[in-house]
Amino acid sequence: MVHPENDKQYKGLIVNEGVKNLPQVNPYATFRRQKRELSVDEYVNGILRGDITLLGQAVTLIESSLAKDQEIAQKVIERCLPYSGNSVRLGITGVPGAGKSTFIEALGTMLCHQGKRLAVLAIDPSSERSKGSILGDKTRMNELSTEANAFIRPSPSAGSLGGVARKTRETIVLCEAAGFDTIMVETVGVGQSETAAHSMVDFFLLLQVTGTGDELQGIKRGIMEMADGIAINKCDGSNIERAQAAKVSFKNALALFPPPESGWQPYAETCSSIDKTGVLKVWKMVEDYIHFTKENGYFDHRRTQQAKYWMYETINSALLNGFYQNQTMELLISQMEQDVLNNKISSFIAAHKLLETYARLSH
Amino acid sequence: MVHPENDKQYKGLIVNEGVKNLPQVNPYATFRRQKRELSVDEYVNGILRGDITLLGQAVTLIESSLAKDQEIAQKVIERCLPYSGNSVRLGITGVPGAGKSTFIEALGTMLCHQGKRLAVLAIDPSSERSKGSILGDKTRMNELSTEANAFIRPSPSAGSLGGVARKTRETIVLCEAAGFDTIMVETVGVGQSETAAHSMVDFFLLLQVTGTGDELQGIKRGIMEMADGIAINKCDGSNIERAQAAKVSFKNALALFPPPESGWQPYAETCSSIDKTGVLKVWKMVEDYIHFTKENGYFDHRRTQQAKYWMYETINSALLNGFYQNQTMELLISQMEQDVLNNKISSFIAAHKLLETYARLSH
Repeated sequence: MVHPENDKQYKGLIVNEGVKNLPQVNPYATFRRQKRELSVDEYVNGILRGDITLLGQAVTLIESSLAKDQEIAQKVIERCLPYSGNSVRLGITGVPGAGKSTFIEALGTMLCHQGKRLAVLAIDPSSERSKGSILGDKTRMNELSTEANAFIRPSPSAGSLGGVARKTRETIVLCEAAGFDTIMVETVGVGQSETAAHSMVDFFLLLQVTGTGDELQGIKRGIMEMADGIAINKCDGSNIERAQAAKVSFKNALALFPPPESGWQPYAETCSSIDKTGVLKVWKMVEDYIHFTKENGYFDHRRTQQAKYWMYETINSALLNGFYQNQTMELLISQMEQDVLNNKISSFIAAHKLLETYARLSH
Repeated sequence: MVHPENDKQYKGLIVNEGVKNLPQVNPYATFRRQKRELSVDEYVNGILRGDITLLGQAVTLIESSLAKDQEIAQKVIERCLPYSGNSVRLGITGVPGAGKSTFIEALGTMLCHQGKRLAVLAIDPSSERSKGSILGDKTRMNELSTEANAFIRPSPSAGSLGGVARKTRETIVLCEAAGFDTIMVETVGVGQSETAAHSMVDFFLLLQVTGTGDELQGIKRGIMEMADGIAINKCDGSNIERAQAAKVSFKNALALFPPPESGWQPYAETCSSIDKTGVLKVWKMVEDYIHFTKENGYFDHRRTQQAKYWMYETINSALLNGFYQNQTMELLISQMEQDVLNNKISSFIAAHKLLETYARLSH
C-alpha cells in the first residue's frame, strides 16, 4: 500500500484550511489580503487541481457573512457543481460520549492508507457556544490530521442550523470537485442537526455505546429509524460481551421496523475505535449499501430527492424567517401564544390574527 | 349497568349529525334554512346543554368553506373553548385492513355501556377521492351508531391535510363543550395524517395485525416511535399464537427505543375486536397512561405544546401556501427544480432566485 504522503500524486497538498502556514501576526489581515487577490477562475482552477489551500480558502468564503464573499463563493460553487457528486457521503451521529471523533479518526486513517481521499465535515450549530464541540478541537484527531489525504473542517459556527447546514452542503460540493472521494459529516444526535446531516449523505450511521446501562438515553426518538446502519462502538475490554448482546438486540429491533425506502435492511456491527477492530467491518457495511443502492437505483434517487429537499428547505426557512424575525411580530406572537395557552382564543384564530397583522406590515 | 339509551340523562340526544331525521326532499335547502335561523348564542347554548342536533350543525359550519359560516363557527368555537379540554383524546392509527373501524366499534360500544360519552372523529384528507375511506361509510359502525352516547362524524372531506386537521381539532372543542368525555380520532397510518392526529390527542394507539407475513408493510417509518402503545388486533382463531408472539417482539423492540418524553414505557396488548377479547385491556393501557401522565405533569404539558403547535403550524402553512400556490411561481419553481436536478444551479441559489422573484411579485 502506498502511503499517500509518499505518493507524488498528492505532493504539494496542504492539509486543513491552508492557513496554518501563514504568519501568525494578525492572520486575519494576511488572509483577507491574500484572498482579495484571487478571482473566481483562480479558486475554481485551484480546487479542480486539488489544491487544498485554495479549497480551504474557498470554504472560508462560503462561511463568510459578507455579501462580497458570498457572491464569489456562489460563483465558485456553481462552477464546481458539474464536477461534484463523485463520492461516498457518510453521515455519522451519536450522543456525546459515543466516541464519534475516535471512530472517525480510526476509520478515516485506515481509508487514507487505502488511498482514499477523505473530507471530514460537521454540522453543529452549537459549536460557537459550547467549547469542545464536535471537530472544534482538531487535536482530538491527531493522527488523521497528519494524513495528506485528509481534509478536516470543523462545523461553521455562525448562525442558525439552516445556515450551518447550507455551508456544510456547499462545502461538500467543493470537496468533491477537489477530488475527495469520501465525505464524512459528523453531527451530534441530540437536536435537529441529524435531520440536516441525514438529508445530505448517502449512508447515515448511528454510533451507539453499551455498558452505561442507559445506552439510548439522549438519542432523540426517530433517529434510529433514520439510520442505514448502527455501529456499536467501544466493543473492547470488559465491554465485549455486552456489545455483542446489543448487536443481536438491535438486529431484532431493526427487523421490526417497516422496511426503508432503499430496500436495504439496516443492521448493527460492533467495533472498537481504540483496539481498531471491527472498524473496517462497519466500512464494509457502508460499501455494501452503496453497491446495493446503486444497483437498485435508490442511490441516485436519494441524491435527487436531497437536492430538491434543500431547495425547498431554503425557500421555506426564508419565508418563515421573514415572519418570525420581524421585530414587531415577535412581541405580538408571544402575547398571542399566551392567549392560546389560557384558552382565550383558539390556535387557529390566533394564527390568522397574526397573519393579518403581518400582511398589513408587509404592504 | 344502565344502558345509556334508557338513562334519562341522555334523553333527547339525537345521534350523529342530527340531520338524519330531516325530510329527504332537498335536505340541503332544508338544512340551510334551518341553520340560518340560529344565532351564535343558540348554537353555544345548545352545545353546552348537550344538544347533539345543534352540535352536528355547528360542526357542519366548521366544515363549510363559506366565509359567513366560518365567521359564526369561529365565534361558536371561541365561546366553547372555556368548556373544552375535559376529555380523554385517543388517536388510533393503522394500515387499511388493521381493523380500525371494528376495533373502534367494539371498544366504543363497551365504553358507551359504561356510561361514557364518545365522539368518534377522523382525519383523512383523501376521503373525498377514495370511496370507502375511514368513517366515510358509517354503516361499518352499525352497532356503535345506534348508541345514544356516541357521536360519529366522518372526516371533513374538503381540502388539504391542514384544513382537514384544523376542522377535526375544532370539532373536538365543540364535542368536549357538549359533554363528550372520550374522543377518538381515527387516521390511516400511511401518510402525513397521523402526525396531525398525533398532535391533537393524549394517547396515540397503533393498531397492528399479524399473520399476513408482512405486518409492518405500509406503516410509515417513524409511526412506531410516535405510538404510546400498540394493540395487536385480530388475536383470534388460528392467529392467537402469532399475535402473542408479536406482543413479545414489540415489547422487546419498544424497550430499545429511547424513552419518550412522557416517561411512559409503551407496550403492546393483544385483542380481538370480533371476539371482543382484550379490548378493555387496551383501554386499561390508555387509562393507566392518562393517570401516569396526569401525575407527572406530562398530560398538561402535552396539551399546551399541542395548542402552540397548531398556532405555529397554521401560521407556517399560510406563509408557505402564499408562495407555492402563487400561479406565476408554480411554473418557475418546476423549471428551477429541473435546473437543480441537472446540476446547473445549486439548491441554495435556485431557492434564492425564486424568493427574489416572489418578493418582486408581492410588492
